[in-house]
Amino acid sequence: MKAVVKRRRTKGMEFIEVPTPKIGLRDVLIKVKIASICGTDVHIYDWTRWAQHRFTPSRIIGHEFVGTVAKIGEEVTQVKTGDRVSAESHLTCGHCYQCNNGHSEVCRNFKLLGVDHDGTFAEYLVLPEHVLWKNDENIPDEWATIQEPFGNAVDTVLAEDVSAKTVLILGAGPIGLFATSIAKACGASLIIVSDPNNYRLAISKKMGAHIAVNPRRQDVVQLALDATQNNGVDVVLEFSGNNQALNQGLKIITPGGRISVLGIYERRVNMDLNKDVIFKKIRMYGITGRKVFSTWYKTSRFLSSGLVDPGPVITHQFPLKDYEKGMKLMKDGKCGKVILNM
Amino acid sequence: MKAVVKRRRTKGMEFIEVPTPKIGLRDVLIKVKIASICGTDVHIYDWTRWAQHRFTPSRIIGHEFVGTVAKIGEEVTQVKTGDRVSAESHLTCGHCYQCNNGHSEVCRNFKLLGVDHDGTFAEYLVLPEHVLWKNDENIPDEWATIQEPFGNAVDTVLAEDVSAKTVLILGAGPIGLFATSIAKACGASLIIVSDPNNYRLAISKKMGAHIAVNPRRQDVVQLALDATQNNGVDVVLEFSGNNQALNQGLKIITPGGRISVLGIYERRVNMDLNKDVIFKKIRMYGITGRKVFSTWYKTSRFLSSGLVDPGPVITHQFPLKDYEKGMKLMKDGKCGKVILNM
Amino acid sequence: MKAVVKRRRTKGMEFIEVPTPKIGLRDVLIKVKIASICGTDVHIYDWTRWAQHRFTPSRIIGHEFVGTVAKIGEEVTQVKTGDRVSAESHLTCGHCYQCNNGHSEVCRNFKLLGVDHDGTFAEYLVLPEHVLWKNDENIPDEWATIQEPFGNAVDTVLAEDVSAKTVLILGAGPIGLFATSIAKACGASLIIVSDPNNYRLAISKKMGAHIAVNPRRQDVVQLALDATQNNGVDVVLEFSGNNQALNQGLKIITPGGRISVLGIYERRVNMDLNKDVIFKKIRMYGITGRKVFSTWYKTSRFLSSGLVDPGPVITHQFPLKDYEKGMKLMKDGKCGKVILNM
Amino acid sequence: MKAVVKRRRTKGMEFIEVPTPKIGLRDVLIKVKIASICGTDVHIYDWTRWAQHRFTPSRIIGHEFVGTVAKIGEEVTQVKTGDRVSAESHLTCGHCYQCNNGHSEVCRNFKLLGVDHDGTFAEYLVLPEHVLWKNDENIPDEWATIQEPFGNAVDTVLAEDVSAKTVLILGAGPIGLFATSIAKACGASLIIVSDPNNYRLAISKKMGAHIAVNPRRQDVVQLALDATQNNGVDVVLEFSGNNQALNQGLKIITPGGRISVLGIYERRVNMDLNKDVIFKKIRMYGITGRKVFSTWYKTSRFLSSGLVDPGPVITHQFPLKDYEKGMKLMKDGKCGKVILNM
Repeated sequence: MKAVVKRRRTKGMEFIEVPTPKIGLRDVLIKVKIASICGTDVHIYDWTRWAQHRFTPSRIIGHEFVGTVAKIGEEVTQVKTGDRVSAESHLTCGHCYQCNNGHSEVCRNFKLLGVDHDGTFAEYLVLPEHVLWKNDENIPDEWATIQEPFGNAVDTVLAEDVSAKTVLILGAGPIGLFATSIAKACGASLIIVSDPNNYRLAISKKMGAHIAVNPRRQDVVQLALDATQNNGVDVVLEFSGNNQALNQGLKIITPGGRISVLGIYERRVNMDLNKDVIFKKIRMYGITGRKVFSTWYKTSRFLSSGLVDPGPVITHQFPLKDYEKGMKLMKDGKCGKVILNM
Repeated sequence: MKAVVKRRRTKGMEFIEVPTPKIGLRDVLIKVKIASICGTDVHIYDWTRWAQHRFTPSRIIGHEFVGTVAKIGEEVTQVKTGDRVSAESHLTCGHCYQCNNGHSEVCRNFKLLGVDHDGTFAEYLVLPEHVLWKNDENIPDEWATIQEPFGNAVDTVLAEDVSAKTVLILGAGPIGLFATSIAKACGASLIIVSDPNNYRLAISKKMGAHIAVNPRRQDVVQLALDATQNNGVDVVLEFSGNNQALNQGLKIITPGGRISVLGIYERRVNMDLNKDVIFKKIRMYGITGRKVFSTWYKTSRFLSSGLVDPGPVITHQFPLKDYEKGMKLMKDGKCGKVILNM
Repeated sequence: MKAVVKRRRTKGMEFIEVPTPKIGLRDVLIKVKIASICGTDVHIYDWTRWAQHRFTPSRIIGHEFVGTVAKIGEEVTQVKTGDRVSAESHLTCGHCYQCNNGHSEVCRNFKLLGVDHDGTFAEYLVLPEHVLWKNDENIPDEWATIQEPFGNAVDTVLAEDVSAKTVLILGAGPIGLFATSIAKACGASLIIVSDPNNYRLAISKKMGAHIAVNPRRQDVVQLALDATQNNGVDVVLEFSGNNQALNQGLKIITPGGRISVLGIYERRVNMDLNKDVIFKKIRMYGITGRKVFSTWYKTSRFLSSGLVDPGPVITHQFPLKDYEKGMKLMKDGKCGKVILNM
Repeated sequence: MKAVVKRRRTKGMEFIEVPTPKIGLRDVLIKVKIASICGTDVHIYDWTRWAQHRFTPSRIIGHEFVGTVAKIGEEVTQVKTGDRVSAESHLTCGHCYQCNNGHSEVCRNFKLLGVDHDGTFAEYLVLPEHVLWKNDENIPDEWATIQEPFGNAVDTVLAEDVSAKTVLILGAGPIGLFATSIAKACGASLIIVSDPNNYRLAISKKMGAHIAVNPRRQDVVQLALDATQNNGVDVVLEFSGNNQALNQGLKIITPGGRISVLGIYERRVNMDLNKDVIFKKIRMYGITGRKVFSTWYKTSRFLSSGLVDPGPVITHQFPLKDYEKGMKLMKDGKCGKVILNM
């Protein structure tokens, strides 16, 4: 089969022929229909410091997808051939302190699809049954593939209720844009989106932003205070991974408010913890992964019920072999989500 | 001034001339612009058993309104003449165990406007400063008057998050209808409304119900199971005050789900607590009043930001002197909310 | 092997020789050291209406135990021969809406050990690996066997925080007594226990009750009001399954308080929902089962760290063959927990 | 009357004669019995950078106390002459967004007793009625005076439940020591206290610490991992205001755990937000002030019911005139809480 493989400890990848994988007793072979590119994949392509530290070649990359069950292992009971599936990308152990306490999203032993286990940028994929998600028939393939990052947005937005609350979203990459539409669907009364990329700001307006602001041109703190009778916002959702944006967010939260942080930072973070967190009695939520499967149910409902239209975020489609075009667009910030057709 | 007064321990009320009330140091005199009729007012008019037990004539009735500050007491600091205000109808003590613990909605000593304190069906009204709410300028008078019952709906819906959840609403009186629009605005993925009154069911569709069902003609339990892949709904909101509806609701909740109950019952309630609550691990929330003022902020935002349009629920307007027309419509179930112009 | 078997649809059981069970790929054979008797077992023995409806002979009964792993299936990875284990008694499906949303305690398809699957009143027992719990070495066998009902108490007490709160416990059977000690260990500032059985009330004092009251001799409502400056208690924990006790409990909760209900009622329940739940804004939690495994971790810590001494509740020990002596004591209310040695 | 007054913008204070203050309509004159010294008072004495920025002489300092009502204003209704009272030290406005939403602990306009309003290191004190707390008769004066900082500890510990959880406490000053006893009383199954001061570590053992560790001599991270089967602790409570301790704490939390932060830092804080918060899905709570009055109820119950004995923390008593002896002990770290008798 054809697959995108990271074979060497250097920049770049290869689109090559590899053997179709075999399945075990509780595994499922999936014929991939669509995969989509995450920033993680770009890091691996570029062989950044993070990738050098975390990734061991050779490995098929990719962790977002929709596909069809092609074959099932002998002990598989929950899916059958022909089922249209996506999957949780964290292959959890099921036995650690975290898994045993309902926090499998921070499993101590999880393997990441496309990093520790051959990924989705291929014609076929093998996964253990327990991570599979059967897709709702009302969700088209182009939307089904983005449920994994959409789930990140769901957990970031809904760490606490946003209904009738004022919200600031920092960072309008695909997850920030999904978060904008989720906050809108859940009754946020004011949504401000901040990002230095005007292309993405324009999409944010389509996703429900009341105010889209470029922090290189406007004073985000002042603008947010003006829009909230000087109270600041109830909720900050941080997707930028930018320390300065984080600190702006903390300045803008109203005392007693909350911040959810999903963005990843290039280096250690510097904060005025006294003024911005302690004296304001802020609740800060670190967010990673997705709750299995409660986040998937929510994601599925947002996408199948008409509550959210992720369409404007899905800006580009390529055949798998042209994956490098997608990677380039992402590095240039000239896209939302890029999907790859098999 | 003119006012609607309950003077006798018998059915009926009187529209008569009474003295304009005087204010104390911390009180505010308000010129009423619009008042609206609640079921409580109808009970007092009809002199039902509840009214006989709870109400002591002579008293001006009514507790929903919007008006303008006409005069302020010497120690009043938070409002000024001309401010457009509504008010929390529970005149709380501020000192009991409940008030001291942030639960003033169940104050042990509260006085109810229009029952224990002269009410809003009058040209003028006196209230202590601490219950006043300054109205958002984007909310028209016709909507400002219904914030008090709308707040009941807010607290019933948002006792827990409804985002991406399936919801059954029992009872489509004004509060049930407001709740429908709030659940819609907050991202409920499925909203079923049940009521035997087809007039109100028709309004529920305008407020966001996906399915409107008449329990006299359809099997609500079966319909809800069919609409939820046999899981039952995540959330039941009970406004009917009907024991049978309550029991249907409990049958329809998915195990692990929740019910909020605001409806008032004519007599003691009979339940299968084992099967319907304990073995299903249900959380039941009794709801009364409004959180002061967090519920008012949410209410104001739903109504001022475009998240909710309560228009279809406000079906009739009369001049105050014709209040009995409104009472009759309410008894006949041929209306949503009835408002009275001064 | 020897086992206590319910073979006929009539009162009684039999202590007989049966074949030692076989294990499947993911199963574990356990040599039982101690089992303990639950009220459920007495219902099955007595062939009550509940039992007639729920139980299908022939079946080995019992669901509480501690034992040692004797043999493991080929795919078992988490336990090994010699491990000292107990188990969650709900054999859950792992795939239903509830299991998928982190509520396996209300799994739609669970099988109950000792009812739907051969139980613990036997020399050997087979269980699927995923329900096993490895016991902390600091917990003696006599305590390890009661972790299952102790977990019920944990979830009832800790449905919300009890720290620095006033608590009323209705029903002083073993679970109510465990709950008393848990509330004590978690910082309840006042614990009142009500039960008509003086034998059990005496144990409740050893478990931490500040006040032990017999409702046949004293006015529980008045006593609780007197002990709380007339505020009522913050928390009611209902284990009695008695409708009158439930109603007393609801009268005694302070407005804004909560009640957790684990007790099972003989018939439908009658409540003054208006006065006792709605107007008081009570939160009611139906409780069943245990959270897997977060409740087990808490249970283990209470028992291994010295926070709770369940000793006074374990009043009787018999060899398995004398199980009927234990059943009789339980029917007479002349015991706490009865344990059976193999 | 005699009082300790900060009169000049330089190090030191003065114990001098000043006029007894007058009361307004809603004010209360209190005869102070005991006051106690907080780190804030030492900052003001030393005229540190914080003090130079925040404090405007001339002002009587001190905000912890117990006293007796000597005289009440004409509109005061909730206390009477002779009542034994303490007080919330945040004189809140009651009208801002925070006060209106039940978060008066982060009131936008609060005045701090002993900083913005004449304080407690004096024979008499005037306070508005609404901040007064009537003391439980079972709490001796020496304990009543420390309820304000004890309340800080209550809110830090109980930001979430600690029952059957493992806890690390960073910083064993008086608030950290109170927190130790509160965690113990609320059923923490393991309490590790870390502080470089051996004098205070010794007190922590009396307050309930299972392990007291000096981070200058032992590897706190390794020790905590060893004590928790390599899982890390469920809860970190940070009182040290030391950036390095904070980072150790974050390393020690188990993924999915929480940290409450009350300690104040000398400068901006540096954190590995990716590894220590985001990828571990940590919840961080900034803590300040006390919930009015729910924290005071809890504090009162811990101290009046025998759940907590704060005695070992109260290490020194002086007459007011010798306040400088207390200040010196605090700077040297040779004390727990120092109280001053009038």
